[in-house]
Amino acid sequence: MKIVRSIRLMTEISRGEKSKGRSIGFVPTMGALHEGHLSLIRSAGKENNFLVVSIFVNPTQFGKNEDFKRYPRVLEKDALLCKRAGVDVIFYPTAKDMYPSEYKTYVEVEDLSQALCGKFRPGHFRGVATVVTKLLNIVSPDWAYFGQKDAQQAVIIRKIVTDLNMSVKVEIMPTLREKDGLALSSRNLYLNQEERKDALGLSQSLKLAKDLIRQGKTDSSAIINSMRKLIRAKKSARIDYIAIVDAQNLKPLKKVSGKSLIALAVWIGKTRLIDNLKI
Amino acid sequence: MKIVRSIRLMTEISRGEKSKGRSIGFVPTMGALHEGHLSLIRSAGKENNFLVVSIFVNPTQFGKNEDFKRYPRVLEKDALLCKRAGVDVIFYPTAKDMYPSEYKTYVEVEDLSQALCGKFRPGHFRGVATVVTKLLNIVSPDWAYFGQKDAQQAVIIRKIVTDLNMSVKVEIMPTLREKDGLALSSRNLYLNQEERKDALGLSQSLKLAKDLIRQGKTDSSAIINSMRKLIRAKKSARIDYIAIVDAQNLKPLKKVSGKSLIALAVWIGKTRLIDNLKI
Repeated sequence: MKIVRSIRLMTEISRGEKSKGRSIGFVPTMGALHEGHLSLIRSAGKENNFLVVSIFVNPTQFGKNEDFKRYPRVLEKDALLCKRAGVDVIFYPTAKDMYPSEYKTYVEVEDLSQALCGKFRPGHFRGVATVVTKLLNIVSPDWAYFGQKDAQQAVIIRKIVTDLNMSVKVEIMPTLREKDGLALSSRNLYLNQEERKDALGLSQSLKLAKDLIRQGKTDSSAIINSMRKLIRAKKSARIDYIAIVDAQNLKPLKKVSGKSLIALAVWIGKTRLIDNLKI
Repeated sequence: MKIVRSIRLMTEISRGEKSKGRSIGFVPTMGALHEGHLSLIRSAGKENNFLVVSIFVNPTQFGKNEDFKRYPRVLEKDALLCKRAGVDVIFYPTAKDMYPSEYKTYVEVEDLSQALCGKFRPGHFRGVATVVTKLLNIVSPDWAYFGQKDAQQAVIIRKIVTDLNMSVKVEIMPTLREKDGLALSSRNLYLNQEERKDALGLSQSLKLAKDLIRQGKTDSSAIINSMRKLIRAKKSARIDYIAIVDAQNLKPLKKVSGKSLIALAVWIGKTRLIDNLKI
């Protein structure tokens, strides 16, 4: 396994593989890899001849008061996990190479970027859209893999690829969870013991929503209210949003229907967690 | 020569050529081809194995009150010129395929898009940046050719390709002119006889600036004032801007230096013309 820092070298390696007719599978990450990432990496490995994982804590997707500096960086551990998972190249560029001082170009996805998390993290999805476009151009994979945990990101990336006529195929893989239901996230590392318990509010409220829907409830605001009550009972929890939206255009739905997405973002102490459920 | 309307077919043709190791040269145009376009097309043909010209009057780069509807569309004539010039494929997509109703993704280049013409045509360069990104992804050429006549566009396209790590190489070719100096432009077709004479104000004022600089003048505002006087003497002329800027970052320069760009946009009657000179 190689760890490649140079953008140019990464491009050359990809071209070399493609010229041999080998398909490239790509998993873009910010590192601090957990089983969720590893499930993407394993799928990418199975379905392709050459396996690239990028590790890049992308500054343009963090707001000024967000956790860019604090975000966990554990390259050695990540490299070991990648090696075990059969990764061929870790692409690990510098922020300076990705965004030189005269950098000016951004990819914007209207509406979808302003919904849900976009309201609370202005500029976040512009940063995501831009870095993903750059990474896809550098690595030029046949397949790229993302997690359903970041539901809005997944919708936006599909949209960019379609709208900008990029040739990559996108696969969205299911959210992995701890046994007690907590969605895997690198940010779970921030939680202390009490917060770890309160963090269950997210997955529990989604399970509650699922149960209510199974019982025949369809009114979004009633379901959201029940979810809100459950989460508010957790001492360290503060809700950014709970929303029931169309799974494709992310517009709010008054009634739960066949292709709804229930999404929420909740602060647990100083840690912002997200989770979602597709109906 | 094929005329290809389908985006998917164009992508397949390009992939086929690339898999045979053939290099693709690409000239994106809005049609109404003149000698300026043809000089790009000939260069692209000489320097590559496979030659693609796109003809697409891109709606997203026209403002509401601009000449989108009026813009000349002469496919048959263009096709004849392309055929004679050895073009392999004219890519001639529909606006509906390029921008389906749920289209949402735009490429933005900060600062560079707001300078010069950007002030007078808000959204124009966003449209240009977006369509060029799309076309480059669809055609995936080795080389793409643009004219220096659209100086700001050329700077912006170079920037996108660098910033988004696109693999295409960009060549900017010199402005072609009529014998009397008028820069070739599809929009020259709009001019009546009187306006055609007044339109010489643009190239004449650039020649005047060149002479002044040769005489040792370096003060930008003095040079611009002389240019302005010359153009104001033309009855049908109304100046949008005359500017002396850094040729790379498009920021105004107080003194003409080694890498300056003198650029101007002037309305001649109802026709907006641009021209420029690199020092």
